[in-house]
Amino acid sequence: MSALFDRAAAAFEAEQLRIVEALEALDGSATFLRDEWTRTPSDEGLILGGRGRSCVLEGGDVFEKAGVNLSVVHGQFSEEFARTMPGDGRAFQATGISIVIHPRNPHVPTVHMNHRRLSRGATGWFGGGMDMTPYYLYEEDAVHLHSVLRDACDRHPEVADYRTFKQQCDAYFYLPHREEARGVGGTFFDHLSDDPERTFAFIEDSCGAFLDAYLPIVERRMHTPYGEAQRAWQLQRRGRYVEFNLVYDRGTTFGLKTGGRVESILMSLPNAVAWHYDRWPEPGTPEAELLDCVRAPRDWV
Amino acid sequence: MSALFDRAAAAFEAEQLRIVEALEALDGSATFLRDEWTRTPSDEGLILGGRGRSCVLEGGDVFEKAGVNLSVVHGQFSEEFARTMPGDGRAFQATGISIVIHPRNPHVPTVHMNHRRLSRGATGWFGGGMDMTPYYLYEEDAVHLHSVLRDACDRHPEVADYRTFKQQCDAYFYLPHREEARGVGGTFFDHLSDDPERTFAFIEDSCGAFLDAYLPIVERRMHTPYGEAQRAWQLQRRGRYVEFNLVYDRGTTFGLKTGGRVESILMSLPNAVAWHYDRWPEPGTPEAELLDCVRAPRDWV
Repeated sequence: MSALFDRAAAAFEAEQLRIVEALEALDGSATFLRDEWTRTPSDEGLILGGRGRSCVLEGGDVFEKAGVNLSVVHGQFSEEFARTMPGDGRAFQATGISIVIHPRNPHVPTVHMNHRRLSRGATGWFGGGMDMTPYYLYEEDAVHLHSVLRDACDRHPEVADYRTFKQQCDAYFYLPHREEARGVGGTFFDHLSDDPERTFAFIEDSCGAFLDAYLPIVERRMHTPYGEAQRAWQLQRRGRYVEFNLVYDRGTTFGLKTGGRVESILMSLPNAVAWHYDRWPEPGTPEAELLDCVRAPRDWV
Repeated sequence: MSALFDRAAAAFEAEQLRIVEALEALDGSATFLRDEWTRTPSDEGLILGGRGRSCVLEGGDVFEKAGVNLSVVHGQFSEEFARTMPGDGRAFQATGISIVIHPRNPHVPTVHMNHRRLSRGATGWFGGGMDMTPYYLYEEDAVHLHSVLRDACDRHPEVADYRTFKQQCDAYFYLPHREEARGVGGTFFDHLSDDPERTFAFIEDSCGAFLDAYLPIVERRMHTPYGEAQRAWQLQRRGRYVEFNLVYDRGTTFGLKTGGRVESILMSLPNAVAWHYDRWPEPGTPEAELLDCVRAPRDWV
C-alpha cells in the first residue's frame, strides 16, 4: 500500500465527516446514520476485503435521501475488467468517497460527487468528478456549479483541465436510449496518473469544492413553493437517474457484478421514484424547458 | 416472412385483446390506453421497422399499473448479439406479447408473461414463460400458478417439459447481487424449434393459461386489508423488480441498447418504487417469510 493511497483514504475520510456535518446542519431535522462496515476476505466476489463507512440520511426536511460513502477495499480484478485498466496484475486497491443527494423540494437539484484512488501493481491513479441533475432549470445554478468546478481546475493547471473534464462529464452521464444528458453536467475525469503530488492536491481541492458548489444552490431553492405536479415530475425524472445508474454506470454495474457491498452501492437510488407510460410535459412549460436543456448540453462558463 | 410467424403474430394480438378486456372487467375503475405505434425504418437503431400496440392502464383500483404489449418488428442483429442466436445472417423478425402487472394491494402478486416468435434466415423458434412475484407469500397461490403452468406443459408432452421450464425460470429470474429469486418462479423457455406445429399449439395454450393462472389469485387477495407498513414493503420489493429488469433482463437491456421503443420496453417498471438503506424485516414476520422463500426456490407442484 503506497503512502499516497493512505493519504488519499485519510483525506476522503476527513472530507466525508466534514460534508456529513454540513448537510446535517443545513437539513436541521434529521441526522445521518453512520454505518461502519468491514469486509472480511472471501472468495464469493472479487472484492476481497476492506472497510468503509456508509453515512445515510433518510426523511429529512431538506434532504429526502442523502448518502455519503467512504470505502477502502482491495481485491482482484476479473481478467475482463483488468484489460480495461492501466497497470499490471490483477490485484488492486481502491479508496473513494461517493455522494448522491436527493433533495425533497423539486426546485433543488440532485447532486453526485465521487473521488477515488486506485492502484494496480506499481501503477496508481485518481479519478472522480461532480455533476448535478436539476428537475427545474435555473441557469444561475448551473453557472454557479460550473464556475466553482472550473476554478478548482484552474488552480491546478498542470494536472486539471476544466474544458476536457466538462466534456468527459457530458459524454459519460448520458442516457443513449433517452437521448438525454443526466442533467447539467459538471466534471468527470479518470486515470490521472501524471505528477501524483500535484494531482493529489487537485483531488483534495476538487473534493473540497463540493460544499461550495452545492450548498448555496440548496439554500437558494429549498424554500421555493411547489405542488403535486412538481412532485410528480420530480419522481418521474428520478426514474431517469435509476435508469442511468443501473444500466450504464460503470461503478454501479461493476460493484454489483463483482460482489461489492450492495447496500452501499445502491445508496444512490432514491426512496421515491415513479415510471409512467409516455408522459411528456406540454411545450412551453418549465418541465419542457428542462427536457430541452438535457437534450442539448451547453457551455455554462 | 413465414406463415407460422404471421399466425403467431395474429394469435398474440388476439390474446392481447382478450387479456386487456379481462383485466379491465376485473379492475372495474380504469381502462387501458390502447396505443398503436409504427416504426419506420431508420439506421439509428438495430430494429429497423415494425408495428405494435402498447396497452397500458395506470391508477386502477386493483391494478396500479398494467402493461400488455404486442410487437411485430424486424431488423438486423448486431454481430455480437447474432453470435448468441441460432440461424444464419443478421436479419431477424420478432413478434411477441409481453405483460407486466403491478397491483395496488400488496397481497396481490406482481406478474409477468411473455411469449414470442423469432426467426433468423430460415430458422425460427419460440420462447416465453410466465412468473410471479409476491410481496407476501401465500403458498396456495404459488401452487395454483405452478399447477396451471404444469398442466399447460403436460398437454403438449412432445415439446414442453414443466420441470425443465420451471428450473430455467428459477435460473433466469435471479438477482445474483441480492442472492434472491425474483419471486416464486413459473416457467421460462427459449429456442423451441423442433416440431413447429406442436410447439405453436403449446405456445397458444401457454399464452391462454395466463388468465387462468393469475385472475383467481387476484380475486382471492384484492380485498385483503393492508396498511402503510405493507405498502412500504411492497414499494421496497418493487425496487428489486426494477433492479432485475434494468441490470439483468436480456429483453430489456437488448431493447434499450438496440434502439427498441423505450416507452414500450419500460412499461414493466412500476409507477411507485422506493429504495431504503439496509432495511430488513424482523425475523418471524410475514415479510421475513417472503425473503426466506425467494432465497430458497421450492418445488411447488
